[in-house]
Amino acid sequence: MSRPLVGHLDPAFVGMMEEIKTMLREVFQTRNEMTFPVSGTGSAGMEFCLVNLIEPGDEVVIGVNGVFGTRMVDVAERCGARVIKVEATWGRIIEPQQIADTLKQSRPKLVAVVHAETSTGALTPVEEISRLAHNAGALFMLDTVTSLGGCAVKIDDWQVDAVYSGTQKCLSCPPGLAPVSFSKQAVEVANRRKTKVQSWYLDVNLLGSYWGQDRVYHHTAPITMNYALHEALRLVLEEGLERRWQRHRTNHEALKAGLAKLGLQLAAQEGHRLWQLNTVTVPEGIDEASVRKRLLSDFNIEVGAGLGPLKGKIWRVGLMGETSTRENVKAFLRALSQLLKESGKRVDVEAVLAAAS
Amino acid sequence: MSRPLVGHLDPAFVGMMEEIKTMLREVFQTRNEMTFPVSGTGSAGMEFCLVNLIEPGDEVVIGVNGVFGTRMVDVAERCGARVIKVEATWGRIIEPQQIADTLKQSRPKLVAVVHAETSTGALTPVEEISRLAHNAGALFMLDTVTSLGGCAVKIDDWQVDAVYSGTQKCLSCPPGLAPVSFSKQAVEVANRRKTKVQSWYLDVNLLGSYWGQDRVYHHTAPITMNYALHEALRLVLEEGLERRWQRHRTNHEALKAGLAKLGLQLAAQEGHRLWQLNTVTVPEGIDEASVRKRLLSDFNIEVGAGLGPLKGKIWRVGLMGETSTRENVKAFLRALSQLLKESGKRVDVEAVLAAAS
Repeated sequence: MSRPLVGHLDPAFVGMMEEIKTMLREVFQTRNEMTFPVSGTGSAGMEFCLVNLIEPGDEVVIGVNGVFGTRMVDVAERCGARVIKVEATWGRIIEPQQIADTLKQSRPKLVAVVHAETSTGALTPVEEISRLAHNAGALFMLDTVTSLGGCAVKIDDWQVDAVYSGTQKCLSCPPGLAPVSFSKQAVEVANRRKTKVQSWYLDVNLLGSYWGQDRVYHHTAPITMNYALHEALRLVLEEGLERRWQRHRTNHEALKAGLAKLGLQLAAQEGHRLWQLNTVTVPEGIDEASVRKRLLSDFNIEVGAGLGPLKGKIWRVGLMGETSTRENVKAFLRALSQLLKESGKRVDVEAVLAAAS
Repeated sequence: MSRPLVGHLDPAFVGMMEEIKTMLREVFQTRNEMTFPVSGTGSAGMEFCLVNLIEPGDEVVIGVNGVFGTRMVDVAERCGARVIKVEATWGRIIEPQQIADTLKQSRPKLVAVVHAETSTGALTPVEEISRLAHNAGALFMLDTVTSLGGCAVKIDDWQVDAVYSGTQKCLSCPPGLAPVSFSKQAVEVANRRKTKVQSWYLDVNLLGSYWGQDRVYHHTAPITMNYALHEALRLVLEEGLERRWQRHRTNHEALKAGLAKLGLQLAAQEGHRLWQLNTVTVPEGIDEASVRKRLLSDFNIEVGAGLGPLKGKIWRVGLMGETSTRENVKAFLRALSQLLKESGKRVDVEAVLAAAS
């Protein structure tokens, strides 16, 4: 990011734009032409997908099992959608059967779910949901903010029509851009709209002309952020997707083993736990906020708080991208062990660390 | 920007957010509480102002004398506004009398103009337009993307209710953020809306809670971009606003003198020419595109092309922020002299450079 700035239509930058698109397609595992980073953070990516695909009055089915499904509902309603919510307890996945049941009674334009719910630590399997959506004649949309780069995301195999992500999770790039991809079907839906896209900044037709071969001036792309994304994608592909996913898995397993020795439970639904975002149930008698505060101040380790119904009940421990290392797992376990000890819990630190080795 | 990342709710970053707001107020010359950078480029700032202040059916008067006034119309219409355009030839300013005449026949909610039209090089004086807008009971909105930091921008003195800018012009920061400020009146209008703001990402009520004392999680701010803006604002204030404006003025004067010796004309309306963006009329018999191309390839100098009706007719020469130096003025004049000579023009390079000294 400290490379000198060039103009956003400079040939050097235009070449970089092409490389970013190519690498993004590889990371998303897609051949979608319409694949590029939106000039905003992950939530702008969510809004990009919804403003372009929804017109007032359209019916949309949205899976809600955490903060980001809830947010999708809000954004979709602001686009004029009639939203049908498919809800699950926070920490649990959206079951295909729930979607199937809903689709018996509605013919939505779009079915949308969050792949990896950062607020709860649950990973919803989406292949079956995608099949159900398409059988019902709907587009399928997926939030991969926290999944991309940390576990399998296969846009073409899973027939995802609209997908967005963020840069600051498992791509290990600073926040500021939202990689997105639209299938041909999604692009057609956007082209066939009767109404103009309500957002000029996020209009896929305008953005497609800027990021495509036409290079029609739209906005000034955040040059430096794109430098960062270019390098982050290069590092992801240098490691290899499969190897990167495995690294996230094994470090999650190590953390899980150490936590078990500490007598702590993971909060998300068993069998559907994220590797990159581990939600840990706060044990009885422990002040969760003060543990978080001391982790940050004394150990330089930031963990997230619970949100919504999980507020005060869980810690959210990220092992994302570059931070998913065995050293970090152990540093966290060592620090947490010490804080639990100070709170009067009996802890065998050596056994905890051995379990995570 | 190469400083280590911290979390977006980290106390260290929260402190920086406060400093950014304080410095932005100083640069905008305002005491508006609602002053912060939107997490998108300048055009997202434009959209921020319009989506929050306009509801479907609202009447809006917009001055159109270049690309960015044209864009405002597009964005406002996507918000459901009934737009009344006040037009001027590209290169000329919006005259207060035009606004006065328009306001005889309409009672708009908002009057909006572009301060410094980057596409034409004209600076529209806005104090009188602001007075006319308020007398008609309207809010006054101003685009300061290219003016902020390069010439006087006085939000409180001029009673501007909604203003947006960009980081990559005269603030000399990479592109990626859009500083904005709303007066109390504008915030009230946004609070009293009957309909939800159509953009979740740009909703001032949600953003105000995130950037205000509540720190309610909204989106993840682009941390690194905010580091950059923090440093850029610090440098602007270290130089001092008045001194910075004078620097832009004197380098513009130097360029103008050199161009005059070259027999070239400035294209924008006399008496209302921008110091930071100089539009130069392409002389007869010169291939404007090939001059631009050679400036970039042979001299490492990028100048902008004409847009819209000015396509092929002008060069747009930026002297913005850190790049507004006498050395850059001379380097450009030297390079342009050589290219004009090669095209068969008679040029006295020494006299051109002496005029710019």
